[in-house]
Amino acid sequence: MSGAEFPIVGVIGAGQLARMMIAPAIALGVNLKLFAASSEDSAALSAEHVVGNFLNPDEVLAFAKTCDVITFEHELIPNSVIKVLEQNQVVVRPSSSAFIYSQNKAQMRKILQENNLPVPNWDLYSGDKDPRIPFPLIAKSISGGYDGRGVWVVADESELRELLKIQPTLLLEEKLNFTSEIAVMVARSPHGQAATWPPTLTVQRDGICIQTITPAPDISDTLKISAQEIALKIADLIGLVGVMAIELFVVGDRLVINELAARPHNSGHWSIEGSVTSQFEQHLRAILDLPLGDTSMRADFAVMGNVLGGAKTNMYRPYLHLFARTPYLKVHQYRKEVKAGRKVGHVTAIGNNLATLQSEVSHAVDYMNGVVDE
Amino acid sequence: MSGAEFPIVGVIGAGQLARMMIAPAIALGVNLKLFAASSEDSAALSAEHVVGNFLNPDEVLAFAKTCDVITFEHELIPNSVIKVLEQNQVVVRPSSSAFIYSQNKAQMRKILQENNLPVPNWDLYSGDKDPRIPFPLIAKSISGGYDGRGVWVVADESELRELLKIQPTLLLEEKLNFTSEIAVMVARSPHGQAATWPPTLTVQRDGICIQTITPAPDISDTLKISAQEIALKIADLIGLVGVMAIELFVVGDRLVINELAARPHNSGHWSIEGSVTSQFEQHLRAILDLPLGDTSMRADFAVMGNVLGGAKTNMYRPYLHLFARTPYLKVHQYRKEVKAGRKVGHVTAIGNNLATLQSEVSHAVDYMNGVVDE
Repeated sequence: MSGAEFPIVGVIGAGQLARMMIAPAIALGVNLKLFAASSEDSAALSAEHVVGNFLNPDEVLAFAKTCDVITFEHELIPNSVIKVLEQNQVVVRPSSSAFIYSQNKAQMRKILQENNLPVPNWDLYSGDKDPRIPFPLIAKSISGGYDGRGVWVVADESELRELLKIQPTLLLEEKLNFTSEIAVMVARSPHGQAATWPPTLTVQRDGICIQTITPAPDISDTLKISAQEIALKIADLIGLVGVMAIELFVVGDRLVINELAARPHNSGHWSIEGSVTSQFEQHLRAILDLPLGDTSMRADFAVMGNVLGGAKTNMYRPYLHLFARTPYLKVHQYRKEVKAGRKVGHVTAIGNNLATLQSEVSHAVDYMNGVVDE
Repeated sequence: MSGAEFPIVGVIGAGQLARMMIAPAIALGVNLKLFAASSEDSAALSAEHVVGNFLNPDEVLAFAKTCDVITFEHELIPNSVIKVLEQNQVVVRPSSSAFIYSQNKAQMRKILQENNLPVPNWDLYSGDKDPRIPFPLIAKSISGGYDGRGVWVVADESELRELLKIQPTLLLEEKLNFTSEIAVMVARSPHGQAATWPPTLTVQRDGICIQTITPAPDISDTLKISAQEIALKIADLIGLVGVMAIELFVVGDRLVINELAARPHNSGHWSIEGSVTSQFEQHLRAILDLPLGDTSMRADFAVMGNVLGGAKTNMYRPYLHLFARTPYLKVHQYRKEVKAGRKVGHVTAIGNNLATLQSEVSHAVDYMNGVVDE
């Protein structure tokens, strides 16, 4: 047996984000071990894993003791469980104190506001006082929401009181009249080395990202730099180790921070083909405290389209048409059961003609989910 | 359980070539299953596998019956075993009749010569007549040689007779005074769709490739096109399915075919980062009869350096220096035990300044194997 010098990275979660860590782990020679909910999980189909319950600190700790560093691909593991690992000398990256800001939106809003970072007007609401935010407003679950789940547009106080029945405390935010939504990925290592990628336009439909364009077109260089500066500042502020997505609203000529996610993120998938160093490779480098990789782009533009479950269930047969039509199209299958609206894969195209890339990616996505017929 | 539409590709062999098929298989959603010699094999560390003896037709057939298509990452499996699979309705790509030309150099020379493709003067020799090729000449094993093994420069008849003691029949070839050695990768699908990549300069030391430069510098466009035409002609001639490397000598302004290898090849490793479609993804597309991918380059040049085992055995620690020095350097570890002269990994750099790329790749390789000190 050789290779004892290569570390074992334990990942809590085995969805598509863990799946896309496998390729760079193999290239770097790093051992990947997943803590999966099921052997049928996206990444568990293709990597070493144990099946366990991430709510159970004993199970997670037993797993963690077999790894050199523990990281996450989702925010669902309780922060208290992460703390148990840390109390038992497990190296956890990002740490519980950094990860909390992508687990708890109230704490996230608080730290950003205290540090003069641009946030919407916000308040916590438990029904004990009048909401300080004017209607219509945005109400959010403090934790657990994603892809539009746990986010509501609330027209008046009666609607708000209805929501309280399912969520005893809500985060209320002003409803911004934004021009567009962008996201910036940032990576930071324990040494404090940090790097960002160019900001990405995230095109949303029904609260779900359907397409991304990198670099975000139609926003000024000033705004792009400002977005990257915000990302670097937050990474430093929370002591991030790993990669993080910062989602921002573009409101005229200013930026307002929407969400944080201290892990690889859908808005960074373009980087697999589009950047010299993908977010997945960079995440591994960062948590292993290796020097970060070059985040330059490989072409002028990268367009990524999410394949959402639709009428078609066969995700392989479309290759016959799509690969013949667009020989430079890159497909990433998550191997999840196709359900309506579920992200089951994505496609990416990079090049120098944005209109062509967008059209090819849109066609591919529509064809895969059955909007365009065979 | 979902995903029954995704085929199972069985690979005979689990070395670094199989290892580098894992990433594109995961992206495409294709199931990879390896027939390994040992669970410690390079690719077996990171993919589903069975351990077996590829000389045993029953074992290989039992494995093949669990797959939708069988392919190879080395030529060591006997052609007779491949024929057993075919007689049992296993889909084998490339077929035994195509694969034989990278298993048997005598048959390779014969078919190329019969089809007016440029080969060195050659003859078979068993000691029963005078060698038809003038000394000094090249003697080769008919099968089984690679990386300079099974190839001898022979000064005179007494040396030749010595060789006959270990090889009852030898392939003799004229010793060419070549300017450089290049290789061309070609892919071909069962439909007959074919594609080549730009020709690659292979820089050799002691019969082992130490660096490749793509596209091969210092050769004319006419020669480059000629090399690609030769590759396409051979692919068609032998009914190739999959990818194949054709190694050629550049002798002044003409090309002479040296070797064929009907599988992904060291001279095509640059394509992982350097081409829109890597040789490994293309091999999967070809054997699955999917439309082939774009073989354009992602930058002006791609330089690949083989990491050969040297003084250092720790292949992870060098990352600290190398990644800080060259943030765009890409590493591929094979996770093989480090032995003197053994290929244990490779590094690639792509960009537009060839001199810089060569210098960074050379430094990285020297640093990893201990020629340059820490």
